[in-house]
Parts: sequence; structure tokens; C-alpha cells
Amino acid sequence: MNKDIPDIVIGRLPIYLRELNQMAGSEGLVTTSSQELGRRLDISSAQIRKDLSHFGEFGKQGTGYHIPYLIDELEKILHLTKRWHVAVIGAGYLGHALVHYRGFQMRGFIIKCLFDIDEQKIGAEMGGLTVQDLGELEVTIDEHHVQMAILACPPEVAQDVTDRLVKAGVQSLLSYVPVHLNVPNDVQVSYSDPVIQMQRMTFYLEQ
Amino acid sequence: MNKDIPDIVIGRLPIYLRELNQMAGSEGLVTTSSQELGRRLDISSAQIRKDLSHFGEFGKQGTGYHIPYLIDELEKILHLTKRWHVAVIGAGYLGHALVHYRGFQMRGFIIKCLFDIDEQKIGAEMGGLTVQDLGELEVTIDEHHVQMAILACPPEVAQDVTDRLVKAGVQSLLSYVPVHLNVPNDVQVSYSDPVIQMQRMTFYLEQ
Repeated sequence: MNKDIPDIVIGRLPIYLRELNQMAGSEGLVTTSSQELGRRLDISSAQIRKDLSHFGEFGKQGTGYHIPYLIDELEKILHLTKRWHVAVIGAGYLGHALVHYRGFQMRGFIIKCLFDIDEQKIGAEMGGLTVQDLGELEVTIDEHHVQMAILACPPEVAQDVTDRLVKAGVQSLLSYVPVHLNVPNDVQVSYSDPVIQMQRMTFYLEQ
Repeated sequence: MNKDIPDIVIGRLPIYLRELNQMAGSEGLVTTSSQELGRRLDISSAQIRKDLSHFGEFGKQGTGYHIPYLIDELEKILHLTKRWHVAVIGAGYLGHALVHYRGFQMRGFIIKCLFDIDEQKIGAEMGGLTVQDLGELEVTIDEHHVQMAILACPPEVAQDVTDRLVKAGVQSLLSYVPVHLNVPNDVQVSYSDPVIQMQRMTFYLEQ
């Protein structure tokens, strides 16, 4: 796989995949075009064709894309033909919401374990998992072949937890913690902070 | 305010602001430099200087930035000198986590109301709010001067709720629903879908 493809292109592929799955699923569609997909996503059809052209020829002039085929190809490109094992750190309100979210399993990610340091929470059942002591992090990650982690812990412990996860072999982190995390170059961090997203929008709002 | 500034620049300002607040707060720092800020955020100092230069001169050669002053200026630029009123749609696991998240109030956003259609939930207390019937959406938005909304509702109803929010005057939406939403050009939508973020990362992982 060519790793020189711009990350912004990679970032759009899951959005195409999600829309295609919706078209194939509840709507029962079999074919589509870059025009139709673009119209649905507010992305230009030229952009979609250009993005996909990094990976091969997926459509035919005149007939467009065969949706199940394009879904398969996108899943291969994004390495979604296997299930990825995920650890969630933090069994607070957000951790609780995460382990109950069915969208992970449906789209390729299995939450295998959930950790906290609160003795009141350790041992409790949550979303089909048992909350584990953070002290068991390394052993459990190894045991469950966990490759990704979601951080939903307090900011004060986020860097320490990150260091431990990386040392245990986790290569991708999705962090809901509102702090910047330091990781080695070969580890990816993706951030989700609602306030950052909202502050970006208020710039455009009239006061 | 110059609206021709690239959105990607606007998107970094809240990240600078968050880091500066951390430096001024728990760390008690008073001055910093683009080098120090860049080092902490893995952003080049040149990028930070260039981003800030769109809005004026905030630092001095040799002495750097006065942190409280830069915080004030960024808050003015991002329109955070007032509090923004927010509605949350959906009182499920995610809505529950959102109304309990203290980071909103601390950083300029007040969740004023929470809606659901489930009669089992309507009337219940959640995070200091009473879950309201979605039927009361328009009246409540008007009453509480709500300008932003966070969507944490099922995908099937997301577009309909969006249309109602926009018609009621909401101009910015943060959506946790894994579907693309159609809105008029003058309305902003920011999406948060953990699976999209994770699928972007798996591209880079060895299978």
C-alpha cells in the first residue's frame, strides 16, 4: 500500500464507506456514481474520483460503481477485513457510553476490555464487560491482542496511561481527553474534543 | 473579522487556547513562546506565528507571548467572551455523558436543555436538567436563546431534528450521529464519529 497518499484522502475513505454501507443496507441500492455519492456527502464528484484513483479503478464510465464491490475494496484498503481489538480506558460517563455504543462492533471494532482505577467501579459489569483494574492493563492487552485504545480518563493521568499503552504495543489511540498527548512517531493519536469543535464554529457566529 | 482566513487556521486556535489555559492554570506560567507552545503541541513554531499573524501582533521579539493577554485575544477572536447556549438532542448513553461533562461550562458553553422522544425518559432529571419532550424543541430553543445544538440521537431521526433546529434558528451543530446531514450554507455542522477516526488509523496499521 502506498503510504504517500495524503492523510486527508485517507480520512475521507471511511466517510465514503459509511455512506455506501447505508446505500447498500437500508436503501438496498446496488450501483451508484461519483455524482450521486458526492451529492449525498456535499463533496465534489471530481474529488471522489480523484481520491479513489489513488487506489485503482473502481467504476466504469457510464455504469458507475458497483456498491458491494466498492465497499469490499474500501474495507481492504482501510484494513477492515479483520476485526480490531480495542481497550477503553476510563469507566466514567463517557466510558459507559462508549462500551454501550453498537456502532463499533458493526463497523469492525471489538471493545475487549475496560479499565478504571476507582475501586467502586472495578469488578462491575458495564456493557457486557467487567471493569478491570488499570494495574492489569499490560497483561490484558497482551492476552486480548489489543491494538487500539480509546482514552476516556481524567486529563491528569492521560499521558501516563498513553505511555503504558504504547509500551504495551498499542499503535493507535483515540483520545477524548482534552490534552495533547506525546507519542512516538510510529504511534497515531486521533483527538475528539467537543469544545474544540464548538469553539471553531463560534468564530463564524454573530455574537 | 476577516472571514477569508482558512478554516484550518481557525481550527487550530482553540487548540492553542486550550494549551495556554493549561499553562496559565495548573502550571501557573505567565509567558511563553511560539517555540514552547509548538513543542508542547507538536506544531511548528513558524506555523503558530503564521496562524496568529492573521489576527494581529500578539508577541514581542525576545519576550514572547504574555499568556493571559493571548488567552483574552483568542477568546475575543473565537467569540468566547460570551457564553453560548446549547441544546442536546438525545438522552441516551451519549446524551447522559454529554450533560455530565464539566468541560463545556468551563470553556464557554452552557447546556440549557436536553430532549428525547422516549416517554420513559421525559421528565427525568439528568445532569441538572430535566429531559424534555422533543415536541417542545422550538419553544425551548427560543426561550433559552439556544444558538448551538449537539446531536446524540438515532440516525433515523437526525435529519428531521436538524431541519427543525435550523428552522428554529440554530446555526451550529455538533453531530455524534454517523450520518451526513444536509443543512443550508449558512449553518455549520461539525461531526464526531469515533469509527470514522479509527478507520482512518487502521489504514496505517499492519494487519
